[in-house]
Amino acid sequence: MKDIQILDLKKTILKDNDADAEKLRRELDAIGTVYLNVMSSPGSGKTSTILQMVKLLKTNYRVGVLQADIDGDTDTRTMLDAGIPAIQLHTGGMCHLDAQMSRDSLTAIGAKDFDLIMLENVGNLVCPAEFDTGAHKNLVILSVPEGDDKPLKYPLMFEKADAVCVSKIDAMPAFDFDMARFKEHVALRTAAPVFFVSARTGEGIRALCDWLVKQMQTKEYGHG
Amino acid sequence: MKDIQILDLKKTILKDNDADAEKLRRELDAIGTVYLNVMSSPGSGKTSTILQMVKLLKTNYRVGVLQADIDGDTDTRTMLDAGIPAIQLHTGGMCHLDAQMSRDSLTAIGAKDFDLIMLENVGNLVCPAEFDTGAHKNLVILSVPEGDDKPLKYPLMFEKADAVCVSKIDAMPAFDFDMARFKEHVALRTAAPVFFVSARTGEGIRALCDWLVKQMQTKEYGHG
Repeated sequence: MKDIQILDLKKTILKDNDADAEKLRRELDAIGTVYLNVMSSPGSGKTSTILQMVKLLKTNYRVGVLQADIDGDTDTRTMLDAGIPAIQLHTGGMCHLDAQMSRDSLTAIGAKDFDLIMLENVGNLVCPAEFDTGAHKNLVILSVPEGDDKPLKYPLMFEKADAVCVSKIDAMPAFDFDMARFKEHVALRTAAPVFFVSARTGEGIRALCDWLVKQMQTKEYGHG
Repeated sequence: MKDIQILDLKKTILKDNDADAEKLRRELDAIGTVYLNVMSSPGSGKTSTILQMVKLLKTNYRVGVLQADIDGDTDTRTMLDAGIPAIQLHTGGMCHLDAQMSRDSLTAIGAKDFDLIMLENVGNLVCPAEFDTGAHKNLVILSVPEGDDKPLKYPLMFEKADAVCVSKIDAMPAFDFDMARFKEHVALRTAAPVFFVSARTGEGIRALCDWLVKQMQTKEYGHG
């Protein structure tokens, strides 16, 4: 078993996180690294989805993964076991990451050696949406078992999404999840595209990767 | 359709929330009302589990429900349609409730007319655990699709639990959820009992209600 690198994140003192996030994006542009912030509830399948995406993307791109959690290291272990460079971030109880915490993490993994860094944010559908991490794009994942009403209850998270991914679609038969109704609810908050995927069967992963690669190639950076 | 009462919660100025929470518990004791704080991730089945519990409990007890959300009113609608007294709380983006927000909500629903008030906290496995709501007991729900590793990643939430409820066990065949392993992970954080339920089939709801009724009858109040 490889040793897991754990970074204990420190609380940021800086007041203007939005300005710092913009600065971080310019720093990343200067070294040619794209930074994707992946957000969802706990247990929505962030790790599994990221894992399947990286397996496809790593043919053409150097991809690294930042795993943020309150505690634990199981997700980083999963990535390392699959041969994917990853480090574990511990937020020390904090419910989100801001730009400075991102910068510290990107430095720790050595962002300049990667074309793409994917951040698995803390599992939380509220707080991470309130803090710009400095990422070029935000991917919001919602799993089928959570229900199609969630964009109504967690509006800010969906407003901040550049793409929305519905995960665990293989479990669709066991749950009352209406894809059309979900899309309607999402459309109230954002014009972002919606992808339906199963990390288990691989369905939909290619389309999600194609979206991400297009963002990387066209340099359509910045949230919006 | 009944009109839904919506309470827009205000941010609390008070500094010492812990002391205020103790004060609220004594206020509730004085009027003979038990207050249960139900916490989980978004989409873990809080509403469905509460609904099934109240259907059993209301034979012997006057039960009211407080539905906290960032936005929306679907859960309160569900309760009212089932003939259960409920009001909708809007946190205005806040990720948790504190004691004063609880007090305002309990006043709004008229707590003295109820034997039991159940609070459906904001869907979030991080922040609500950091704030004592003044509830007598905390019930933490985790759904099968979220995975059995969550006590490792969200330790504080499980430390604060007086009972842990695993929901959606009817979906067990579709997911890799190891009940024994989950219990081991919970035991690292708390000695609280673990219940396995399905709101869909009704399995396990009776045992969970029996636990709650025992707390109410023995007046074993106060967290811990």
